[in-house]
Order: sequence, then structure tokens, then C-alpha cells
Amino acid sequence: MRKRLYEVIFEADTPAGKAFDVALLIAIVTSVLALMLESVAEINAHYGPTLRAIEWAFTVLFTLEYVLRLACVQRPARYALSFFGIIDLLAVLPTYASLLVPGSHALATVRIFRVVRVFRVLKLARFIGESHALMRALRASFHKITVFLVVVISLVVVTGSLMYYIEGPDNRGFTDIPTSVYWAIVTVTTVGFGDITPQSPLGRGIASLLMIAGYGIIAVPTGIFAAEFARLPAPSVSTQVCPSCLAEGHDPQAVFCYACGSKL
Amino acid sequence: MRKRLYEVIFEADTPAGKAFDVALLIAIVTSVLALMLESVAEINAHYGPTLRAIEWAFTVLFTLEYVLRLACVQRPARYALSFFGIIDLLAVLPTYASLLVPGSHALATVRIFRVVRVFRVLKLARFIGESHALMRALRASFHKITVFLVVVISLVVVTGSLMYYIEGPDNRGFTDIPTSVYWAIVTVTTVGFGDITPQSPLGRGIASLLMIAGYGIIAVPTGIFAAEFARLPAPSVSTQVCPSCLAEGHDPQAVFCYACGSKL
Amino acid sequence: MRKRLYEVIFEADTPAGKAFDVALLIAIVTSVLALMLESVAEINAHYGPTLRAIEWAFTVLFTLEYVLRLACVQRPARYALSFFGIIDLLAVLPTYASLLVPGSHALATVRIFRVVRVFRVLKLARFIGESHALMRALRASFHKITVFLVVVISLVVVTGSLMYYIEGPDNRGFTDIPTSVYWAIVTVTTVGFGDITPQSPLGRGIASLLMIAGYGIIAVPTGIFAAEFARLPAPSVSTQVCPSCLAEGHDPQAVFCYACGSKL
Amino acid sequence: MRKRLYEVIFEADTPAGKAFDVALLIAIVTSVLALMLESVAEINAHYGPTLRAIEWAFTVLFTLEYVLRLACVQRPARYALSFFGIIDLLAVLPTYASLLVPGSHALATVRIFRVVRVFRVLKLARFIGESHALMRALRASFHKITVFLVVVISLVVVTGSLMYYIEGPDNRGFTDIPTSVYWAIVTVTTVGFGDITPQSPLGRGIASLLMIAGYGIIAVPTGIFAAEFARLPAPSVSTQVCPSCLAEGHDPQAVFCYACGSKL
Repeated sequence: MRKRLYEVIFEADTPAGKAFDVALLIAIVTSVLALMLESVAEINAHYGPTLRAIEWAFTVLFTLEYVLRLACVQRPARYALSFFGIIDLLAVLPTYASLLVPGSHALATVRIFRVVRVFRVLKLARFIGESHALMRALRASFHKITVFLVVVISLVVVTGSLMYYIEGPDNRGFTDIPTSVYWAIVTVTTVGFGDITPQSPLGRGIASLLMIAGYGIIAVPTGIFAAEFARLPAPSVSTQVCPSCLAEGHDPQAVFCYACGSKL
Repeated sequence: MRKRLYEVIFEADTPAGKAFDVALLIAIVTSVLALMLESVAEINAHYGPTLRAIEWAFTVLFTLEYVLRLACVQRPARYALSFFGIIDLLAVLPTYASLLVPGSHALATVRIFRVVRVFRVLKLARFIGESHALMRALRASFHKITVFLVVVISLVVVTGSLMYYIEGPDNRGFTDIPTSVYWAIVTVTTVGFGDITPQSPLGRGIASLLMIAGYGIIAVPTGIFAAEFARLPAPSVSTQVCPSCLAEGHDPQAVFCYACGSKL
Repeated sequence: MRKRLYEVIFEADTPAGKAFDVALLIAIVTSVLALMLESVAEINAHYGPTLRAIEWAFTVLFTLEYVLRLACVQRPARYALSFFGIIDLLAVLPTYASLLVPGSHALATVRIFRVVRVFRVLKLARFIGESHALMRALRASFHKITVFLVVVISLVVVTGSLMYYIEGPDNRGFTDIPTSVYWAIVTVTTVGFGDITPQSPLGRGIASLLMIAGYGIIAVPTGIFAAEFARLPAPSVSTQVCPSCLAEGHDPQAVFCYACGSKL
Repeated sequence: MRKRLYEVIFEADTPAGKAFDVALLIAIVTSVLALMLESVAEINAHYGPTLRAIEWAFTVLFTLEYVLRLACVQRPARYALSFFGIIDLLAVLPTYASLLVPGSHALATVRIFRVVRVFRVLKLARFIGESHALMRALRASFHKITVFLVVVISLVVVTGSLMYYIEGPDNRGFTDIPTSVYWAIVTVTTVGFGDITPQSPLGRGIASLLMIAGYGIIAVPTGIFAAEFARLPAPSVSTQVCPSCLAEGHDPQAVFCYACGSKL
């Protein structure tokens, strides 16, 4: 019985497992849409009670599902502390928290991240393979990206301070260093909101250098990632999830889990 | 007679076919320019009737062409439901619709997409080859891009909700979750309109993280596409269109359609 | 005598040729800076006559140089119609034109493009090699970029018309289709000025799709260029310019011009 | 004694050296945070004296460290003129300068760049290897990037002048050529603050061309860097710093410095 439940909830290889995952996908998207619409004043005035009822219905459903997941998995603690275990919990907590802190149920939209799991349903293996490929490429360039981020953060801190020193007294925007650093981040990432802008010739000159630097800097992570990605072999994995340690990405022919050795 | 018409309208290998396609290209661009100019108040005040006459003339012409295309192709239903068949229909509908819904003829600019077809005229094979190469590279990375899009959409929904929760009460911009999600999209894509901006220190901190994430995220589709594109062999196709199934991209030496086997 | 002049003005292999090119580089940058400063009201009030004198001095100098170039090159017509010949002429015309049309001397900053030529001086061969490599990579991806541009232009025309139809009546920004197309270009290129922004939920939804599309579209030219560039062999050329046809990019061992066969 | 001090301060191979570098990392980040918070008016009103005390404590500490570094290195002049020697000096100067020029201590945030050095502590070799790889890729594409920058600068100068000529008289934003060039940089880098925007149809047309050009231009440095980076072999270096010439990036098996031949 417990094994059967496990197969339906955690796997997507059986018809029942697929149906469960599709229903879950629809429930997640519907509940997030309800949460978003509820925040719109006009819609809330007309359909507020209905939307709140929908929200509570889905929250109770997701809570039940979370309890069932804990009940049918071999190592509940391991699941509870895994990425998806935490997301599953965070998906229901804000609605209960809204009983104490009004308005906090808006944060329940975090349940959208649960959608990532249901990739397993739609041409599963390939999608999981793709996300594994993305993950491996990101992990391979982790060190380079850390070095890169430290350089970028140093750059925005120094440029922000410099702009605060130059523009500060006369310009309403650059009120303190944290605000100036925020402006430098907005500029170097080429977002450019325009709520804070340099006015003095010197400030504009430094801003120009920062923008051209940002233009060049954008090339660095792209180049790193493209090179790393080009080295990856084509992925080929199954959609099996280990019932004991929840590891994914097993070889299609695998009989035992590569991580803990238990039978799949 | 019908076969001759087909060669003139659908193909660009004969002098008549080329001339037809060049004339069509000019007609499309002229009619789109007329539509754009008509919407400008000053120009409309002076040349309104002329521009409306031009628009109707081209619409009647394009309607006639659409009927001829239906008449001379072997399988009219197949053409009518193909990408170009739908565009050809949408290119004339808005002008007729403007008799019922005033102003809707502005949407007739969709006929600009018909220009894509007339690539066949200008050094045809190479252009078609290029667009096939682009298409194949996009299709090859379709799964990776879907995974990527789901992650980005989840990210903007959660960040938007968080910003609504943090900035909401005091900031005129973040009025509801859909608006906040719109802001998150504007920010993560580095567009940065600046009509909605965070004001609180915490909101600015989260915005900074989102911008730096967006900076890194922009590297992912570029890296995917560059890697996929580098793997493509040089394309080599003819401009022949199958008269029976409308398939394009035939080998220059091909005598029969690769899709349905009928004679080219 | 004429050959000696040619070597000084057109080549950078002799000490005199190098000195001439360095002096020219300094003159160009100085004259452009003078033009820029002259336009600033405060600086013009104090140093206007001096700056105008500098401008006229450089213009007379550049005119003299242009005449000498025409005099010493073997085929003056060919030089006059080459890219650099036209730039050299445009570099002096606006100052003379300002006698008839006041203010037009601002356009004399076009002479900054002359700087590109003096790359020949600074570690010449390598720089020319690099710019040739860039040019070849751009030319190789010309067809792909044309297809790409036509798709982008079609996209902004259709999106602009759609936004004009949706936002038009209520929003001061989307006054006519050309303005809406301008907004679509500002958005799809992720520039995002924010002077025109959608206000209706539907308009914001379409803008979001356009921004995410723009995000993905930016990957296409980068991927094309990166792939094309990776295929290029390391360049190795000399700084010789053919005295007869002005062709550049000769092999270091070349004795005859690859384009016209005359002796180098 | 001096050699022992050198190992603690300059190296990170011994436990004492690691502990010193970790302490330094914490001190740098703390002092920069104190400087940033001090600039916020509200926080300064409450904790101003405390933050100023922290700042002076760290400045005295860093000064002491700078003197010790000078004392224990074999060639003090070489260290003082190296990149990190200059940063170490600039890290303390602004606080002392603030005694003469009030407010200049904001510039002491430049000490954040010292963080780059302490990469040596955290899984050292790999991080140094990564930054060396980044540096080599940047150096390899230096010539191409210079050519690219000259073209971009020429483009913004000419476009800025053109916009000043077209928009100048009627538009408050384009007051002089330097401001217009600043606008062109903001536009071509896709930052798009929106504080200065074209209003005339012709100005918007030119801005559109500039934006589409910027869109394509962004592909150039990315393509260069990606291609250059893909050619790099995997780096493998130690964290040893030569005590005599301060060169980094030695082979793990190296016994003598590759740059000056002295014993490591």
C-alpha cells in the first residue's frame, strides 16, 4: 500500500503517477493565479470570498499531500530537508501564517517552484536531462562565476562611493553610499531605471565608464557558460527517483541507486 | 493554366515568379507604411482620404491574391491552415473588420510578416538556408529553453509577490501581484522602464539580487544557442516549394518532395 | 617626390610615416574635443573665439591634407570614392557648411572616424589583423543577421500596432503607430527609456511577452557571431596598402597586390 | 623572523597564514560595511561616533599591516608599486585625508578590492587558476576589444553630435555635445535611463538605429570572449607567491620562480 502510494506521488512512470502529476500541475498553477488575482483591488472587491475559499481549499489539499509524501517515503527526514521538501512546506506555510500576520499569504506564490518538479510528466527524461545539463554547466563554471561576482561587487561598491562623493551634495538621488551602490548595480547590469541619474559632468563621465565596463562585463559570464556548455556531452538519463535517498538522474539501465546503492 | 499560375505565385525560379514576388514585396512594404502614416494625427488631417484609398486598394489586391493562391494550389485546405496561409488571411481581415470595429485596421500591419516569404527572391537559396539553420538551432535547444523559461517565470512570480509584500503598503507602484510580477519581468530582462521602482532599503536589496541574477541568467540562453549553433553543418538547400504539401528546404538535386514524394 | 609623399601620408612603415600618423591622431582627437567643448554654453561664453579658431585651423589643415592625398595617390578617383576618402571629405565639409547653415559644424565630429585609420601606427599589423578578423566574421554571418533583422523589424511593427490599438485611446504615450513601433524597439532591445510605458493590464502582458522574447532574441546574434568567430583562423597580415587600388590586408610576404596585381 | 612574518602575511599555505587571511577578509568586509552605514543619515544620527571609531580602528590596523608588508617583503619598492601595493595604500589614505577634506573617507571603500587577494584562502589554487584563466582570455582578446572600443566610441561621438544637431534647439535634454554623447552611451549600452529622450520623429528614428546597432554590437565582445575562452586549456597552478618578485600562478611542482628564478 505504502509502496503503491510512493509510486503514484513520487514517480511518473505509471498511468496513475502521470495523472497525479498532471492534476498537481493544474492545481499549482490555478492556486497561484488565484493568489495573484486576489491582490488586485477591483477583482478582490467582487470575487474576494471566492478566491480566498479557493486558496484555502488548495492549501488544505497541499498540506494533505505533504503529509502523504512524508508517510510514504522511506526516509521522511531526508525528504523534509531536500530542496523539494522545503519548497513543499513553504508552499503551505504562508496561508496559515496569514491568520497571524495579515497579508503574508501573498508569499504563498512560492509554490510556483513546485512546477519544476512536474517536468517529470511531460516527456520526462528529456526535460530532466536538460535541467541536469544546465546544472552541470553552472556547477562547472561555479569558481569562475564566483571570481567574476566578487570583482563586480567590488566595482559597484567603489563606483557607488565615488558617485556619492561626487554627486552627493547637489543631487537628490545619491543620498548615501548604499543608495549609490544600488544605482551602480542598476547601471552596470544595464537595467537603468532612471529614478536616480548623475547630473554633473564628472558624474556622467564616471557613469559612462561604468556603462561601457558593464557592456564588456556582460560578455564574461556568457563566454564562460557558452564554453562550458559546448564541452558537455548529450545527456541521457531516466526519470527514476531513488525511493531511499531521492537521488535523480539515474542511467536508464540502472538497477541500483548510484548514490546509496538501494534497489530502484 | 493553373500550373502556370502556381509557378508565378508560389515559386520564384522563373522570371515571372521573381517579378511577382518583387512586386508583392513592394506592395506589402508600401501598404504597411501607409497604415503607419495614417495613424499620425497631423498626416491624417492632410492625406487621410488618400491613405485610406491606398489601404483599401492594397487590401482588395491582397484578397484577390489570396483567392488565386487558394485556386491554384493542389490542396487548398493545407495551404489555408499553413503558417503563411493564416498570415495571408490575417493580412486582409483587419481592414474589413474596421467597417464594424472602427480603428481595428491598425492591426493590418500584421501583413509585414508576409515579407518573410519573399526572401525567396533575393539570393533565395542562401536566405532560406539561413532561416532553416536558425530554426533548426532553435528547435534543437527547445527543451533547454523551456526549462529555462519555467525557472525564469517562477523566479519573477516569487520575486514579484515578495516585492508586493515588502513595498506594497507605502509604494504607489507595487499595487498588486500582477503589477509586481510585471515589474520583476521588466527588471530581470534588464529593460528597466523606471515607471515602478523600489524605495525601501530591503526592496532595493532584493531588486539588486534580481538584477545580478538577471545579468547571469542572460548568459544561459546565449550559451545554449551558441553551443547549439556551433554544432550545425553549413546548410545547402534549394528554393523549391512542393506543389502538393508546401514543404520547403529541398535539396538542390531533389526531384521528388522529401515529405510527400510528389514530383517537384 | 610624389612617391615619398605617398609613403609618409599613406604608409606607416617608415619613421616619417609613423610620425605623420601619430601627429594626425593627436590633431583629430584635439579637434573633436574642441568641437565638443564649443557646444557647452558656459565654456563657449569664455573660450568661444579660441575654440572656433582651433576648429578653423584644424579644418584648413585637414583640407590641405586631403588635397595632398589626392595629389600623391596613383588613382585619385578611387581614393575619393573609397570609405576613407569619403570620411576625409566629410571631416572638413561641415565647418565650411556652417558659413551657410549656422550650427552645422557640430557634424564635423564625424572626423573621429578617421581615428580608425591610424591603428596602422600602434602595433599596426596586429590591429589591422584584428579588424579584418572582425569584418570577416561579420560578413560571414551577414545572411543570418539579415534574416534575423527582418524578423525583429516585423515583430516590432506588429507589436507596436497592437499596443497602439490596445493602449492608444487612454495612454498619452502611444499616440500613433510610428511612436508605438519606436516604443517596441526601445523595449525589445532592453534599452527601456520609460518615457512611454503601458498602463493597461493587457498592454503590460503584451509588453512582458515582448521583453521575454527580446531576452531570448539577444541570444541569436551573439550565438551566430560566437560560432562564426570560433571558426576563424588566427589572422596574419601586413600593414601594406596597395598604392594603386588602396587594398589592405596583404600577406607579409606579398610582393604584388592581391586585388589589382600592381607592385607593393 | 622576517621570513616567518612574510609567510603569515603573504602566503596562505600555513595555518597561521590562512588564519591571517581569513581575519583580514572579515576586517575588510566589516570596515566597508561600517563606511557604507555611516553615510546613511538616520544611522549616522544614532551610531555615528561608534562607526567612526570602528573606521579609525580598522584604518590604523590596515596602516600597521601595510608597514609590516613593506618590512617583510624582499623588495619593498616592487611591492609598493604592484597592483596590490597601491590598493593597500589607497585603502588607508582616504581616512587620513578626511582630516583635511571632510567627507573624503567615503572613498576608503576602495579597500573592498583587497578582498580579491584573499581568494588565496578559499580553495585557493582553483580560484587563482580561474582568475588567471579570465585574465589570459581578456589579454588574448585585448587587441580585438581595443578595435571594438574605438569603433563604439566613434559611433557614440558621431551619433551624439547628430542628435544634438537634430534635437538640440527644442529638446531640454540635448543641451550640448558632451551631454548628447552621454545619452548615446546610455542608449548603445542598452542602459536607457530615460532622463534624456528624443522627441522629434527624426531623432527617434536615429535613436532606433542606434539601439538596433547596440543590440548587434553587444554580440561582438561576447563572441570574441566566448571564442577565446573556449580555446583556453584547463588551468592548474599553485597558490605560491614568489617572495622576491611577487609573481603568482606557479606550477604546483615548481621549486623556483618562473619569472625571476629565486627559490619559492
